[in-house]
Amino acid sequence: MMIVSNTTVAPLYLERVKSALTQFEVDEVILPDGEEYKNLETLNLIFDALLSKRHNRTTTLIALGGGVVGDMTGFAASCYQRGVDFIQVPTTLLSQVDSSVGGKTAVNHPMGKNMIGAFYQPKAVIADITVLNTLPQRELSAGIAEVVKYGLICNTKFYGWLNANMEALASYDAQALTMAVELSCLDKAAVVAKDEREGGIRAILNLGHTFGHAIETNQGYGVWLHGEAVAAGMVMAADMSWRLGNISQQDVHDLQSLLKRAQLPCIPPAEMSNQDFIDLMQVDKKVLDGKLRLVLLKSIGEAVVTSDFSADTLHQTLAAGKQLGF
Amino acid sequence: MMIVSNTTVAPLYLERVKSALTQFEVDEVILPDGEEYKNLETLNLIFDALLSKRHNRTTTLIALGGGVVGDMTGFAASCYQRGVDFIQVPTTLLSQVDSSVGGKTAVNHPMGKNMIGAFYQPKAVIADITVLNTLPQRELSAGIAEVVKYGLICNTKFYGWLNANMEALASYDAQALTMAVELSCLDKAAVVAKDEREGGIRAILNLGHTFGHAIETNQGYGVWLHGEAVAAGMVMAADMSWRLGNISQQDVHDLQSLLKRAQLPCIPPAEMSNQDFIDLMQVDKKVLDGKLRLVLLKSIGEAVVTSDFSADTLHQTLAAGKQLGF
Repeated sequence: MMIVSNTTVAPLYLERVKSALTQFEVDEVILPDGEEYKNLETLNLIFDALLSKRHNRTTTLIALGGGVVGDMTGFAASCYQRGVDFIQVPTTLLSQVDSSVGGKTAVNHPMGKNMIGAFYQPKAVIADITVLNTLPQRELSAGIAEVVKYGLICNTKFYGWLNANMEALASYDAQALTMAVELSCLDKAAVVAKDEREGGIRAILNLGHTFGHAIETNQGYGVWLHGEAVAAGMVMAADMSWRLGNISQQDVHDLQSLLKRAQLPCIPPAEMSNQDFIDLMQVDKKVLDGKLRLVLLKSIGEAVVTSDFSADTLHQTLAAGKQLGF
Repeated sequence: MMIVSNTTVAPLYLERVKSALTQFEVDEVILPDGEEYKNLETLNLIFDALLSKRHNRTTTLIALGGGVVGDMTGFAASCYQRGVDFIQVPTTLLSQVDSSVGGKTAVNHPMGKNMIGAFYQPKAVIADITVLNTLPQRELSAGIAEVVKYGLICNTKFYGWLNANMEALASYDAQALTMAVELSCLDKAAVVAKDEREGGIRAILNLGHTFGHAIETNQGYGVWLHGEAVAAGMVMAADMSWRLGNISQQDVHDLQSLLKRAQLPCIPPAEMSNQDFIDLMQVDKKVLDGKLRLVLLKSIGEAVVTSDFSADTLHQTLAAGKQLGF
């Protein structure tokens, strides 16, 4: 076994995990912390460690950390000796509610996020709510963005619960966190089970992500947290959904209020031009046959993947985000 | 579509392939030629090209070249945007009879060959015998090593045919080559169909490869051709099989003669010590739970994967290879 962790999480939880595995031979590799290290070079540190410790095809990798550690460990597991087992032990809210479940693994490329990866399922996901106590507020909030996403795309009742419980959730209340993690994982698993390799419906999990990825890439990986960019992206998707007549302007404002209560940003960076967005969104994986497809809301609680919108509408949303902050 | 080729093959055949695809948008990326470039860095050149030309999930990669191009293109296809289609157009005998069929893709790591990769099947394999006319003799011979392998592991009749037709085969006779490619692919496909992910029987395709990989790694990738190392490795496996009482010493000598007629080496490099082999064989993927497993011959035409041999027998084979040239 090889535990893969990073310089932030390892000092906090590595020994706790190792002490639970004393009957196994356990090696470790500690990666630098941050989205900016989620690349082929850092991935190679995992291969270096596995090979220098002579791990073979029967080894199991354990991802102890947030989404970056999970994505890289999963991808390393998918291609080390053409595939070994791995287990996710997510230590951030974001990874507990999203990236650890569903088998998407990847690293970034300078020209695009998550461009190199694999669909590869973990053998188990072990989410311990108590580790969230050491998570900085900004990262807790970033995780809440993805929690809100599940309400928006497929679960009106959950969205109502979030509106009633956002303060508890954003202030680390254990009961609220347990509920949020459980419901998020159930919603995500239900969507992924229908479409593991993202041929169709799974893409609704990317609500806000095409806009969000453009923000992350423009700002440089790691400057905006993924969840923060998704929060702003979800507001942009909601704004477009309103312009297309699917939801009300009040729905958009309510979403902004909910995200603000979670201490999340809900407008894109002021300096990003419409063209910046257009350029960066074109290389996103949701571009099919040259036509940009976006995840939009059909209603609060139902999402749709569509390219059925005019360039004008898109430009209006981009301009609104930049000039007015909605 | 993106054709992936190398600096040797592209000047010969790139235009021919492109002229058959005029109804498609076809880009190309030309890699440096050689096993020493089969690494993550060169792989990244494929990703760079795909991203700068904005290829999306619906693209198809075409591997135009030998095993190195095929292995890298297949692995790139398996992980570009988490998986796109690819087609093998193998231009060496080695890749036509072996690497293009079966879905093993990979790049090397400084600490071991093919350590990073995926099981990922091509949508089609298109083997044109006429391209072998431009293949240097040394590479034709290297391909014949893998052809001989099929006879040894699973096809006594084919082994007999090879003994009767080796001179024709080694001198580019089109009829002999057609027969050899067809029978090799049939044999390989039959083995892979039983065990795609190499949980068991597929490993017999690695006859000679554990010894061979040790030779390649020791000499530096690209100094010995893969097929040359496999040829010497098969003789070592045959020598061990004789020492274990499975085949006769005459069988070993006959194999050496057959390989020599194909202008293949059949002893390992003189400077490699027993310890060099032991060290390098331990990191091979066939090491399971710390125990070295080897593909050996039960008889001519039947292989077995086994760890049922003494260290003494292995050392005798290693010493025989080094001191006596068998």
